[in-house]
Amino acid sequence: MRTVRITAVEAEDQQFPLTGGAGSDAVHTSPVYAYAVCRLKTDAGFDGVGIAFTLGTGNEIVCLAVKHLAQSLIGRELYELMSRFGAEFAALTDSPAYRWLGPHKGVVHLALASIVNACFDLWAKAEGVPLWRLLLDRSPEEILSLLDFRYVEDVLTKEEALEILRAGQTGRAERETVLQSGYRGYDTSVGWFEYPDEAVMENTKRAMEKGFTAMKLKVGSADPERDIRRAELIRKTAGDAATIMVDANQQWTLHKALEVIRRLRDIDPYWVEEPTDPDDVLAHQTLRRAFHPIRIALGEHVPNKVIFKNYLQAGALDINQVDAVRVGGISEFLLISLMSRKFGVPVIPHVGDMGQIHQHLVLYNHIALGHPHLFLEAIPHLRQYFRHPVRLENGYYAAPQVPGSSCDFVDGTV
Amino acid sequence: MRTVRITAVEAEDQQFPLTGGAGSDAVHTSPVYAYAVCRLKTDAGFDGVGIAFTLGTGNEIVCLAVKHLAQSLIGRELYELMSRFGAEFAALTDSPAYRWLGPHKGVVHLALASIVNACFDLWAKAEGVPLWRLLLDRSPEEILSLLDFRYVEDVLTKEEALEILRAGQTGRAERETVLQSGYRGYDTSVGWFEYPDEAVMENTKRAMEKGFTAMKLKVGSADPERDIRRAELIRKTAGDAATIMVDANQQWTLHKALEVIRRLRDIDPYWVEEPTDPDDVLAHQTLRRAFHPIRIALGEHVPNKVIFKNYLQAGALDINQVDAVRVGGISEFLLISLMSRKFGVPVIPHVGDMGQIHQHLVLYNHIALGHPHLFLEAIPHLRQYFRHPVRLENGYYAAPQVPGSSCDFVDGTV
Repeated sequence: MRTVRITAVEAEDQQFPLTGGAGSDAVHTSPVYAYAVCRLKTDAGFDGVGIAFTLGTGNEIVCLAVKHLAQSLIGRELYELMSRFGAEFAALTDSPAYRWLGPHKGVVHLALASIVNACFDLWAKAEGVPLWRLLLDRSPEEILSLLDFRYVEDVLTKEEALEILRAGQTGRAERETVLQSGYRGYDTSVGWFEYPDEAVMENTKRAMEKGFTAMKLKVGSADPERDIRRAELIRKTAGDAATIMVDANQQWTLHKALEVIRRLRDIDPYWVEEPTDPDDVLAHQTLRRAFHPIRIALGEHVPNKVIFKNYLQAGALDINQVDAVRVGGISEFLLISLMSRKFGVPVIPHVGDMGQIHQHLVLYNHIALGHPHLFLEAIPHLRQYFRHPVRLENGYYAAPQVPGSSCDFVDGTV
Repeated sequence: MRTVRITAVEAEDQQFPLTGGAGSDAVHTSPVYAYAVCRLKTDAGFDGVGIAFTLGTGNEIVCLAVKHLAQSLIGRELYELMSRFGAEFAALTDSPAYRWLGPHKGVVHLALASIVNACFDLWAKAEGVPLWRLLLDRSPEEILSLLDFRYVEDVLTKEEALEILRAGQTGRAERETVLQSGYRGYDTSVGWFEYPDEAVMENTKRAMEKGFTAMKLKVGSADPERDIRRAELIRKTAGDAATIMVDANQQWTLHKALEVIRRLRDIDPYWVEEPTDPDDVLAHQTLRRAFHPIRIALGEHVPNKVIFKNYLQAGALDINQVDAVRVGGISEFLLISLMSRKFGVPVIPHVGDMGQIHQHLVLYNHIALGHPHLFLEAIPHLRQYFRHPVRLENGYYAAPQVPGSSCDFVDGTV
């Protein structure tokens, strides 16, 4: 049997300034997009590359955590590591001193995401297949062995997860047709917070010309009138058939959210994203009850499976936007996807990775778990830096074909 | 008016290895106790010293965050800074790039705790009074101006907080008698996880000889029989009149907690601490409902006011163990104490600071907010490193008299 041994670990601080208001939202003005990169060097002639997403300042703190936390992987053999990755994940995340710094949240969990993603990238490269294919080729039992069920078994036992995975075999061939047809993306970049009205209109038109039928607007202004005006503008420009989402990036208090969402209903938003503080399960429960059938979406700032569990138990979200570069990487993403499947809540990830990893993961979720709503955010701003950037045609994501998780950067990027 | 200007910021990595099983629990074996120290140098001849507590490894990551995050304080004048500290706190914690690394949790929030605590320490030193006196001398309106109410006003408005503070004026003189009498401490160090049975018995006897009438046992063993045996042992040794708490340090799943707490009821524990994952509000709600009137205590790993808000709203805790070196320092501690007061939930802090800061804060909570249950954890292991360690007499904490928050270390500690 082939062996791939991890010989060294490098943490790389990759930063990409954006310009002209790109990436701006109600909370994060003039962001820099950055990755805390975990590079696993091997004796096999290729590296595993994992990423966690930050906004520039502080990225080096995550890199320092990556460097420390990944030390235990040096000398490990890949196939042995991945043969029971659920237990390896538990050991990494529960290393007592690092656990104290979370647990399972903040800088150390972002670092874990980067490391875990590097392991999966390495594995897919070793197998010579794209990540989605690697995952689809695993048996239900093998998938289970990649996951750490601790603290979620009160809502999802291993047996239930196995049932979901086995049930997913039915209809799979039919769902695999998306590997040819692609799946719908939505354009997040038409309405960044700092864009003037003219730019929002122009971008919306351009997005539709490119084939997008769904797009997102940043809201959460101090003055709700601005939100309403911009929302009406984009609805008018895109037409009644378009799918329009609005995203407040946590800016509203509960009281304010109740006030502004009530008014935003008129433009028929497909979802309202991150209306308030992402730790506030009960506030989202209140909002969901108040505004049903308008969907409440969140997840990009929810750090782990336990908090997602509470969101699902409380009936506090309609759209699960779990991000594999925020939670503990691909392993925890898959477990959260399984829980979400049980509760019938679609997973439509936030793409801190610009979709590079998630383009694989949503294919897996749809084909193997039977998640019905195959749909993914698209953000083009870092295309030039990835060796194999996501491909969208007519607003549709095409299944990536290159081995790995699509996280290699072009040479000389650092 | 006097001015004190912050001229420089230093982050210090203070580590103190423990020996012989001291500090061990079901999750954190052989810990090192460590502080990420924020030192604010001034033009006034004294420093502000703040701390956040970690378990050694990774402490340097928090120090790096302290160093970065505190840069904006350089050049600031203390009295101007503290005159509207609530807004300053909001600005520090919502600095967009750092906020992304939380928000309000993990490494960046620990760093914030250290920084905020240094500001309060500096203020008390500038006034020449111990922290408890500094706080007691503030008017209700001044206390309010120290707090950041954002995202909690749906359960505690500023007006309600003001009412609590004003109502606290009544009976205050009577409650101030504790400044002379002291208040009861409890001994956490009788039953660390790795201590053999004989040591637990011996320590319990010694604690009682010293005047303690309350003590804590670490549970959460893989084998529940060990927990039961040790719990029976400590109850038998301490007698029926003693207050015994048990602490699982998050080790149990919900299922396991239901099983083991049922059996631990026989030794009549005063509370069961951290039975399961600290993010799992709903699991604690289930446990509280299942075991009432046995108290569910937690808070040492709850990072911020919003999650405490959900715990209180959900009726998921009986004892609030908020720790000012885990949440965003003294400011956030006070806000959480106000919320907890409204819900009638006692605040009995976890002492990551070994009680150095909390000995002040519980005095304030009792005297000014009217929190009825004045009681505080005692852990002696770092006494030799603090310049003015907490004083306990006959198991009672004595009010500290030295200016500041008692966080100065003896010379040469670093």
